[in-house]
Amino acid sequence: MSLKENKCEACRIGAPLVNAAEKEEFFKEIDGWSITKLENVERLVKVFKFSDYLEAATFSNAVAMLAEEEDHHPKIVLEWGAVEVSWWSHKIGGLHRNDFICAAKTDAL
Amino acid sequence: MSLKENKCEACRIGAPLVNAAEKEEFFKEIDGWSITKLENVERLVKVFKFSDYLEAATFSNAVAMLAEEEDHHPKIVLEWGAVEVSWWSHKIGGLHRNDFICAAKTDAL
Repeated sequence: MSLKENKCEACRIGAPLVNAAEKEEFFKEIDGWSITKLENVERLVKVFKFSDYLEAATFSNAVAMLAEEEDHHPKIVLEWGAVEVSWWSHKIGGLHRNDFICAAKTDAL
Repeated sequence: MSLKENKCEACRIGAPLVNAAEKEEFFKEIDGWSITKLENVERLVKVFKFSDYLEAATFSNAVAMLAEEEDHHPKIVLEWGAVEVSWWSHKIGGLHRNDFICAAKTDAL
């Protein structure tokens, strides 16, 4: 089953971070994401470009609805022309499989 | 007429930044906003707290619709529990009366 067909599982404190082999595997299923380390916490980040503000706002809202559905909440930054989405797992201070599932689902929106 | 009853005017390159007296006047009509200087550009910033994600997402979307209506586009950061809104005028590299009008309208949402 592909990442985007999966559903986020409840993430608990102490759940394992993804390892290097998993990252390599998961990156095959997502497009244009990169890992940014902020305050020592890895995040999956992608900037989606839009020439129309309403389209950007609609996309931003769709990501928020996906977040609610998956019960996993990214940082969404909406500015003129672009939406930056960052997924990471607060509870484990880094990247969980959930984050890659949500990145794949964001691509699919 | 109060700020929130005004409408953004088209902002052109070379339009004047608000001066100290105007800032003092305008700050009386907005609540909880502060000025943050980023890359030497002043921005009006406020964090709105929410205990419910859907409420935060709905508010974020309402700010985007206000932005579209006023044809003035803030930075909106949606995270679990909070929405940070920043208004500034790109064309003049700082704060225009429009930014205070939009801050007052954001408060009124």
